[in-house]
Amino acid sequence: MSRWEPNARGRLEQAALALYRERGFEQVTVAEIAGRAGLTERTFFRHYADKREVLFAGSAALQELLVRGVAEAPADASPIAAVVAALAAAGEQFDARRDLARQRQVVIETNQELLERELVKLATLAEALAGALRGRGVAAPAADLAGQVGIALLRVAFVRWAADADDRRLETHVRAAFAELRDELR
Amino acid sequence: MSRWEPNARGRLEQAALALYRERGFEQVTVAEIAGRAGLTERTFFRHYADKREVLFAGSAALQELLVRGVAEAPADASPIAAVVAALAAAGEQFDARRDLARQRQVVIETNQELLERELVKLATLAEALAGALRGRGVAAPAADLAGQVGIALLRVAFVRWAADADDRRLETHVRAAFAELRDELR
Repeated sequence: MSRWEPNARGRLEQAALALYRERGFEQVTVAEIAGRAGLTERTFFRHYADKREVLFAGSAALQELLVRGVAEAPADASPIAAVVAALAAAGEQFDARRDLARQRQVVIETNQELLERELVKLATLAEALAGALRGRGVAAPAADLAGQVGIALLRVAFVRWAADADDRRLETHVRAAFAELRDELR
Repeated sequence: MSRWEPNARGRLEQAALALYRERGFEQVTVAEIAGRAGLTERTFFRHYADKREVLFAGSAALQELLVRGVAEAPADASPIAAVVAALAAAGEQFDARRDLARQRQVVIETNQELLERELVKLATLAEALAGALRGRGVAAPAADLAGQVGIALLRVAFVRWAADADDRRLETHVRAAFAELRDELR
């Protein structure tokens, strides 16, 4: 078997998600995932450290994207507006893989350990957003508030986006949740 | 030794927090906690299921307090205002034990497993707040948003409260964070 397999990473992810949903995350082995994808275990381990990593491999890229989005927001944007701009800009990454994101969510919500890891990921994102805001000269208390509120908006928007029968973009749901918050606090 | 020990629960908590800080949560045994408190292991287990429970025994009472606070908020309060009222009303419970809360926070932040449990607790509180709002007739999307934003405010306020050299009340910090959010979104 050649070392290079076309789209091995994506095939492994799809196989893993299908198996996790069919049999439960804990029951599935790496050998089964590789087999379902028509690949070897060795190929699996070239792409993912373990079977949990399949579900969290995108975390670092998402964090980078959000941090860059905050840095590139208009200079006159308020801290929360800069965070919303970053979330909106990151939305495309989600839209391109809505079905996989939906499957992933079902797997995570049915396993306590995965849910905890997901919550840690979100808490880390909130801190990364606050750090990016401080990099724009925002004072720490305001940066923390905007980071936490930003993640609150992302969580609400994500749930609506995943459940959206009309498949509207994540950006649409982020901006709608933000508009609702503004309206309520007006 | 008599079955009844004056303030056994509080003594066990103080002993546990002191030991967790001195030697790290993982290294401490229930026997050591009981010994430090001048009590028996048997007494420990009458009050706490295990050594982790010492740190999370207040979760259920806090959730109840917040749910009641939302239910009892003025009828014309917006969803987020009702949540803020509930957080403010729960503040006294924190103020009465600021030093213990500070010690607890140090222990939790230095142990990944405890941090995960804390994040699960906060996510559960957000859901409980949303449930209490739905009980007031708030539609699910607005209830979710207010629950998540409420927990974002609590997290920010809690950090400021724990670090506050002037020992201002948690309610003061909750209302200040809420006022900042309103100002920014105006």
